[in-house]
Amino acid sequence: MSKRMAIGWLLMCLPLSGAAQQAARSGPQAPKVILIIGDGMDQHQITIARDYLVGYRGRLTLDTLPVRSNVQIQTVAEENPSLPEYVADSANTATAMATGIVTSAGRIGTTAATDLDVPTIMEIAGAAGFGTGIVVTSSVTDATPASFVAHVSYRLCEGPRAMRPDPANPNALSGNCPADLKANGGNGSIAEQIAASRIDIVLGGGERYFAQVAEGEKRRTVRDLAVANGYRVIEKGEELAGLKRDGKVLGLFAPATMPVQWRGAGGAQAQRVQRDADGRVVSPEPFVCEPDPAYGATPTLGAMASAALEHLGDARSFVLMIESSSIDKQSHARRPCGQIGELKQLDETLKLVLEYAAAHPETLVLVTADHSQAAQLVPERSWLGPNAASPGHFARILTPEGAVMGVNYATNDSSLQEDHTGADVPLFAYGAAAHEVPAAVRQTDIFGIMLRHLGLAAPPVSQ
Amino acid sequence: MSKRMAIGWLLMCLPLSGAAQQAARSGPQAPKVILIIGDGMDQHQITIARDYLVGYRGRLTLDTLPVRSNVQIQTVAEENPSLPEYVADSANTATAMATGIVTSAGRIGTTAATDLDVPTIMEIAGAAGFGTGIVVTSSVTDATPASFVAHVSYRLCEGPRAMRPDPANPNALSGNCPADLKANGGNGSIAEQIAASRIDIVLGGGERYFAQVAEGEKRRTVRDLAVANGYRVIEKGEELAGLKRDGKVLGLFAPATMPVQWRGAGGAQAQRVQRDADGRVVSPEPFVCEPDPAYGATPTLGAMASAALEHLGDARSFVLMIESSSIDKQSHARRPCGQIGELKQLDETLKLVLEYAAAHPETLVLVTADHSQAAQLVPERSWLGPNAASPGHFARILTPEGAVMGVNYATNDSSLQEDHTGADVPLFAYGAAAHEVPAAVRQTDIFGIMLRHLGLAAPPVSQ
Repeated sequence: MSKRMAIGWLLMCLPLSGAAQQAARSGPQAPKVILIIGDGMDQHQITIARDYLVGYRGRLTLDTLPVRSNVQIQTVAEENPSLPEYVADSANTATAMATGIVTSAGRIGTTAATDLDVPTIMEIAGAAGFGTGIVVTSSVTDATPASFVAHVSYRLCEGPRAMRPDPANPNALSGNCPADLKANGGNGSIAEQIAASRIDIVLGGGERYFAQVAEGEKRRTVRDLAVANGYRVIEKGEELAGLKRDGKVLGLFAPATMPVQWRGAGGAQAQRVQRDADGRVVSPEPFVCEPDPAYGATPTLGAMASAALEHLGDARSFVLMIESSSIDKQSHARRPCGQIGELKQLDETLKLVLEYAAAHPETLVLVTADHSQAAQLVPERSWLGPNAASPGHFARILTPEGAVMGVNYATNDSSLQEDHTGADVPLFAYGAAAHEVPAAVRQTDIFGIMLRHLGLAAPPVSQ
Repeated sequence: MSKRMAIGWLLMCLPLSGAAQQAARSGPQAPKVILIIGDGMDQHQITIARDYLVGYRGRLTLDTLPVRSNVQIQTVAEENPSLPEYVADSANTATAMATGIVTSAGRIGTTAATDLDVPTIMEIAGAAGFGTGIVVTSSVTDATPASFVAHVSYRLCEGPRAMRPDPANPNALSGNCPADLKANGGNGSIAEQIAASRIDIVLGGGERYFAQVAEGEKRRTVRDLAVANGYRVIEKGEELAGLKRDGKVLGLFAPATMPVQWRGAGGAQAQRVQRDADGRVVSPEPFVCEPDPAYGATPTLGAMASAALEHLGDARSFVLMIESSSIDKQSHARRPCGQIGELKQLDETLKLVLEYAAAHPETLVLVTADHSQAAQLVPERSWLGPNAASPGHFARILTPEGAVMGVNYATNDSSLQEDHTGADVPLFAYGAAAHEVPAAVRQTDIFGIMLRHLGLAAPPVSQ
């Protein structure tokens, strides 16, 4: 929706009290929030990763967190927001966490049906003078990061070109958000909104969207707008070391989604199960996971998170969102080793975040997922006998402890990708105020938990 | 394995200290444990049930429990117990909770490969003079209840007839546990072990196994042995009211598994998705849930639990295991309304257990599942378009809030039933010592948590 509306909301976003302002100014004791999201990281994905990474008796860093809660996810229908939908996407779920409202699938920081902009935790914290950061392994314009900084009616409006159908290819999958065009009083594409934002540090993929000519410009790209707005733009992992604190940073380390660390040996992934002439199942050969050669010199999630923590410093309050984005994308694509490797990235990043929080006890660390995903841990051979097998796509993974794990993808029979699933997701907490997190929350409560820890007030939302 | 071995173990099961004995004698302040198990009740099953029973914004009684933890399930291979299997069954998981050991699928209170009997929490508590009770909606000889009272190499050895192959039908599915025959130094079938036990109250289904002639007897049935061992046997729900406390009770309210409360309207369940001549999906008609007419006058899980609490009294410590058994069985059978109705039974029973615990603050209430199950909450129409749908069995449920929920069963393509899945399961806690439950446990830790609250020591286990 309109920029005017968004600014109107932000005027109401001043901190709650002098105490909060005080907190923001009070140096290393200033309350800080680090929200880590595993996209699609439900309990199946965690168990699959644990069994592979540390074995069936092992413990992930995730398993050491002192507080565990459960998140009830809420999605409403765009056509009739009084009706629920029982399966969410990353746009409406990230919007729930970033703004505290329930909206419809595909929406970024906007209300269902009425299309009003709702201020995000990053905007509220930024207006209060707090530090803000976003670190992801997707494009920085993807649904999760977008929901913390932008307001647009549809998640695919990632760059200027996606705002209108492509005249050369009018049927291509596109955002098509005419009401969000600046010319129509909107905020522009997600990339343009990031370029115009006050977020202190934004790291991930998505260079291609920033290379596009910005709306209303002849030659200036979105990247040019970001530079004009004070961003230093970096594109190489080695530039993460020694970032100066006196300026904003936009790191774009891949054209779109960053490559993932692992793949199945030789590129193996789940496949349709074959049968012999007698109808008996020919179990797919088990495979191990191996480094994905496409990963190359891509910076790790941990390296980006460390750079963001260093850049934000400890002299003031901040809110930092870190996402391992491709747990979801690899599960969509039926690539169990891709999922496992990306959950490993999350767990390694969590380890260093916990070290930071231990040294900065005013830090609240929350780890959660946005929604559930398709992959299921199942018997490596069906208990129903040699004629029974997954009707979908199936993988047998040989684990480092020498056993075989079955991973099933069967939410639909499309050759393209899996659907999301609708189960509640976990929430873990560590550090300051962790024990105040209730044992069961709704996803929108995560917004309030973060705000409360930062000493900020949510603006009134008149939906 | 052998009765001799079991008795040998039990001699080591005396309480830890005088303090524990004191606790057992100290009236209403005596520590009590109520363990509620939802068989197969993973996060998908809970979310599906919540969405139907109380709506997407609603809260189950489960959602009000103050402590949430996560249970890592461990199963080993019978042929090589140093190797894991990544999907469990109800026998090895209930054995983990009841005895604190990790064993192989199908085993009841015995070690993998070595087949040694391991004392259960009920045996340890009973030997210490504590009250003990088992309340389930399956046969009382089914894997979960059996694991709290019996020791047998294979879960299907439920009654005397299952101990050897049936000569008239040698290929029939049977327990076939010759080493467990009393004649061979074993403990006999599960029903015979229940009949010979000291459990104060045992309520559920399974009358057919107790009607069988006991091993080594000409005419005396297992039920006769139970009566000789001091059990009053009841078969009607109305007999649950006013049970005398001075004697043991065996309630058998169905021939095997008790009927379930709900079914899909007209018997509807998940089905294979049909397509029209153009290959487009013909979405199955949504259905609502309705009372299952087969339920009749079957006593509810709540009525049985209330009777057990009344019978155990509050004058001494006790351990009571309550299971809603058919969440699992209905998920195997692809009956979403059956699952939802049985989770409703669990939630209603939990409500009255919480009332009991509020009035008896020395009670620790634990609620958990034994393993995960097949049913997945998925989009009611695939996001991949009109040509994509579940490759397995699929149901569309019309919820009371007027929306449609998709439930997918696609772990295998057998026409018979689904497989279990391997994800971690939830653990909820309430009451005394609830806040001492860590945020992440292994399933065997539940045994230690219960023992510790009761002030009892686990016997040494020399596997």
